[in-house]
Amino acid sequence: MGNKLLMTPGPTNVPDRVLKKMSEGIIHHRTSEYSGIFKDISENLKYVYQTKNAVLTFTSSGTGGLEAAVVNMFSKGDKVLAVTIGVFGDRFINIAKLYGLDVDVISVPWGKGVTVEEIKDKLCDEHKALILTHNDTSTAAVNPIKEIGEFMKDKKQLFMVDGVSSIGGIEAKMDEWNIDVLVTGSQKALMIPPGLCFVGVSDKGWKAAEKSTLPKYYFDFKSARDYLEKPLPQNPYTPAVPLVIAANEALKMIKEEGLYNVYERHQNLAGMVRNEVEKMGLTIYTDKKYLSNTVTAITFNDDTTASRIKKRMEEEFDIIIAGGQRKLKGKMIRIGHMGCVNKEMVERTLDALKKCL
Amino acid sequence: MGNKLLMTPGPTNVPDRVLKKMSEGIIHHRTSEYSGIFKDISENLKYVYQTKNAVLTFTSSGTGGLEAAVVNMFSKGDKVLAVTIGVFGDRFINIAKLYGLDVDVISVPWGKGVTVEEIKDKLCDEHKALILTHNDTSTAAVNPIKEIGEFMKDKKQLFMVDGVSSIGGIEAKMDEWNIDVLVTGSQKALMIPPGLCFVGVSDKGWKAAEKSTLPKYYFDFKSARDYLEKPLPQNPYTPAVPLVIAANEALKMIKEEGLYNVYERHQNLAGMVRNEVEKMGLTIYTDKKYLSNTVTAITFNDDTTASRIKKRMEEEFDIIIAGGQRKLKGKMIRIGHMGCVNKEMVERTLDALKKCL
Repeated sequence: MGNKLLMTPGPTNVPDRVLKKMSEGIIHHRTSEYSGIFKDISENLKYVYQTKNAVLTFTSSGTGGLEAAVVNMFSKGDKVLAVTIGVFGDRFINIAKLYGLDVDVISVPWGKGVTVEEIKDKLCDEHKALILTHNDTSTAAVNPIKEIGEFMKDKKQLFMVDGVSSIGGIEAKMDEWNIDVLVTGSQKALMIPPGLCFVGVSDKGWKAAEKSTLPKYYFDFKSARDYLEKPLPQNPYTPAVPLVIAANEALKMIKEEGLYNVYERHQNLAGMVRNEVEKMGLTIYTDKKYLSNTVTAITFNDDTTASRIKKRMEEEFDIIIAGGQRKLKGKMIRIGHMGCVNKEMVERTLDALKKCL
Repeated sequence: MGNKLLMTPGPTNVPDRVLKKMSEGIIHHRTSEYSGIFKDISENLKYVYQTKNAVLTFTSSGTGGLEAAVVNMFSKGDKVLAVTIGVFGDRFINIAKLYGLDVDVISVPWGKGVTVEEIKDKLCDEHKALILTHNDTSTAAVNPIKEIGEFMKDKKQLFMVDGVSSIGGIEAKMDEWNIDVLVTGSQKALMIPPGLCFVGVSDKGWKAAEKSTLPKYYFDFKSARDYLEKPLPQNPYTPAVPLVIAANEALKMIKEEGLYNVYERHQNLAGMVRNEVEKMGLTIYTDKKYLSNTVTAITFNDDTTASRIKKRMEEEFDIIIAGGQRKLKGKMIRIGHMGCVNKEMVERTLDALKKCL
């Protein structure tokens, strides 16, 4: 069990060092032992987020984190501008609409990212926030959040980013790039097993939270902050202790390697995948200007090749890759290269892919 | 790390067999391997819940499960009758009020459970549901849900039970006792690490879910059911895979031991704790008619003894017990005896307690 190589856009491989920690036993979440661990995590999350503000931890998937961002920042009827470049952009929009937000949408053709000009054109005074996905794994495309963040400087609108599949793998400077709410999941570039999400909130974000009237209990940011800021940091409700322990170990490993070395590793491996894939004569789906360093999407003209490759990769080579989503179902394979990934893993994957063609 | 004996009302000790499984690696949640595990869990949860209906799994604490129950069953303004016998009854009520429910409350004096007569008196035609806690760990008292369930038979109101600290440790027959929504957490009597919650929903519950207009996304019951009922059962969003694997192992262990043997073990150990505690001349807080088999609460007249004992138990004996909550803070110790617990663990705890007096 669990010995397959996970080359998917999450969940990703978890280092043995992290896996091992989880089996050392359960510690009680209202003890100083737990608080010590939770304090370290919170500090290391600030390092990864490149922020001075608290980064909150919730036991849930990344989707729970997106919902948490909506219910903590807004009130019913609030008007927002949202960008979608794929499945996960659509999801963020669906959640916002479900809670009664008035959502203006910039719908970018799949495979591309948005431009600052498009946002400049559409963002208006009534908008309370700009919402977008940093890296959409469905299309393996990234939005230029550095440029967008520079444009958002001193704007009254919140800048809210779904960084679920980017944080830890693709550069994101929360404070310098004026991001007010930044959500990520544990099971992507952070090398932690699935089950936790993390949310960074800026000072401007906290001011918006004060005004939000949407109901929330489990995902209440203020409650999470109050518990985090106790002399012995805790969570309001029982957290997934083994995953918190795993997160502590994985974040330590990122710090040991150095965040910018981690980014560079991702960039190099992504480049290697793209080069080799093109050498094989395959078609990379994503526009060259918006290529992701955490996942590569490859399309096929027919309806059977992608599924056949995905199946053979698993059955013959014990490598799990992902297929396409929605309109790309059956026509795409996606190779994740994020988190606990190195040259050998990528070579093994590319070698298997070549044999499957 | 994690080598302390957890004699608290959750999180509880996790068997080595379960802990070990978690470190075997991450499997992808969209594979047949995962679906096989998730299918087994779902079947074994039905066995533990004594129900024919699907039991849903969410990555969250038990509190998330209570919130999920509220947002999936109701609409704003719905009138309900709720019973509180302690901290967790209050929490369920707070969540219901937060979502705009009109909550009539039966507030039972701490240390006791509610009677069927009190419910009979208060339940009226406008109520859409009766909400209560099976076992409130804050007072170590249980509500007589068998008798209440018999009274609820053929009533139009939903019967919703917070079974977070009872399921797997104290008998609860979801179908026979006419329970429509039954919530539990992983980290109590089920011997699973914290981070998952489970929710059983009756046919009547599903009908109510159809009418509910409160917003929900991450905790959407229908979405969870649709994914669970696929030929290869899955979760809508990435689940906490290591905890799901742990749940599978722990539920297998419960099945191997036999559910009614597990209940009997809990009953015997609870009896042993209560007898010995009384022999020590200590005062059991809970009314004899409502004693819990998963936790025992002991009160002290002064404001220092309880805290001193709790501290010494941890520092000198590596045993974690709980203190009192709210008005009982500093005046109570609570000994959990649920889940992975046996005679030796209880003897070690009682022996240490004796030495701390």
